[in-house]
Amino acid sequence: MERAIGVIDSGVGGLTVAYELMRQLPNEKLIYVGDTLRCPYGPRPKHEVKQFTLEMVEFLLEKEIKMIVIACNTATAFALEELKKKLPIPVIGVVQPGARAAIKMTKNNHVGIIGTEGTIQSGAYPAALKQINSELKVTTLACPLFVPMVEKGILTGEQAKKVVEETLLPLKNTTDIDTLVLGCTHYPLLEKTIQAVMGDEIQIISSSEETARETSTILEVHSLLSNESGNSKHHFFTTGDLHIFTKISLSIFNEHITDLQKVSMEKVVI
Amino acid sequence: MERAIGVIDSGVGGLTVAYELMRQLPNEKLIYVGDTLRCPYGPRPKHEVKQFTLEMVEFLLEKEIKMIVIACNTATAFALEELKKKLPIPVIGVVQPGARAAIKMTKNNHVGIIGTEGTIQSGAYPAALKQINSELKVTTLACPLFVPMVEKGILTGEQAKKVVEETLLPLKNTTDIDTLVLGCTHYPLLEKTIQAVMGDEIQIISSSEETARETSTILEVHSLLSNESGNSKHHFFTTGDLHIFTKISLSIFNEHITDLQKVSMEKVVI
Repeated sequence: MERAIGVIDSGVGGLTVAYELMRQLPNEKLIYVGDTLRCPYGPRPKHEVKQFTLEMVEFLLEKEIKMIVIACNTATAFALEELKKKLPIPVIGVVQPGARAAIKMTKNNHVGIIGTEGTIQSGAYPAALKQINSELKVTTLACPLFVPMVEKGILTGEQAKKVVEETLLPLKNTTDIDTLVLGCTHYPLLEKTIQAVMGDEIQIISSSEETARETSTILEVHSLLSNESGNSKHHFFTTGDLHIFTKISLSIFNEHITDLQKVSMEKVVI
Repeated sequence: MERAIGVIDSGVGGLTVAYELMRQLPNEKLIYVGDTLRCPYGPRPKHEVKQFTLEMVEFLLEKEIKMIVIACNTATAFALEELKKKLPIPVIGVVQPGARAAIKMTKNNHVGIIGTEGTIQSGAYPAALKQINSELKVTTLACPLFVPMVEKGILTGEQAKKVVEETLLPLKNTTDIDTLVLGCTHYPLLEKTIQAVMGDEIQIISSSEETARETSTILEVHSLLSNESGNSKHHFFTTGDLHIFTKISLSIFNEHITDLQKVSMEKVVI
């Protein structure tokens, strides 16, 4: 039997990564864990985010997975490096793929990053960008209202436009960025509104799309691409409310997730 | 001292990959070998292309490199798999990165591929695309006049437009592709003309750009990214005429290559 790709997130934002994995890698099977009960991770201290992330990873390792995708920016910022060293299977986060796509796309070497307060404060994106090209100019902006708005299902329309417009105003009016990275896996759900506000001349990069693409690269490098074609059966687990999963998954997949199960995480040390 | 990335090509086309490597990975040092003397590889039998490719690889392995980029579609189609198995360092070709970018970009799952006769006949692109998504529709077209035209330095203007227009007519008029992969490393030099002919609604993918981006991913996966910032010194070797190198490099880099040296390849077996 083909092994699955494990996907972990603090909640439902990572479903945009899962959607892209299904679209770009239709032969692959996913096992998704969303820690909705303890979401958001953004305001939590580093050691706690690390512990929660390790618990999800341990849960997945019991399920015969071949790779782990950390589909959460905060968890990537705080736990990726340690997991890469500790685990016997490949691990990818959502920060580096978005950063790399931005480096490819920008013409004027000035990149904008939007994300949660936690992600922006962590400095993970500027670090990833400048590790590769120290001469890049990076402008970051925290958008604390976006995640709560998405979780309420407000994605387009007047209210969404107003919030996005007011939030992005400093980025739009005072910088000359030509590329904007959506540094939060919730944000692709607002992409149309963000593009409309920023204007067509700004290239928007979805870290979800880019992470799926790099997952494909990494599977190939390790000769782990699935040979079974189509109709893969995915499994979804959440630590919290099933309702929010159903609601958001409907926005992303245009259908309900059928195989969704509630689980609880226990403290583990790997 | 940081080790270099080895780049090999049948001639000068791979310089578009080298340009993108320099742009997207400014901390890395390149050693480029172009087999101009025996170019083009397209019409040659498989065993010969393989032998020539192995000779360039052997030449590079003596120079302390950390990774090899096969910046030639024909060489990728015929030698990548064997090199991946044989070499102790990572190897990447130009086919898979372009294929993966196309999978990410296409909305209607219909992808066009243009390349030399050799590349199109090898079926390497449809194979790479369908390995990942067997339901993709792929339309391929050989463009035998493009490489000779580029090597004459004809990149824009009426003559270029006429050749590109006449060549791409079947692709433009009879298919509904939404994404077109430039499956030859010479073609990015004609990108503006190709985009103008195909229209803005077609997304053009440069395998050179995408290969540089995946080189970055693979270096990171193997913890091989350079920490030395800027002003890397690159070395270029050619088996043939120095003049064509100088001419094409001027089109790509807007400056002359300074460190260019003539070498000869000997038959080696690895």
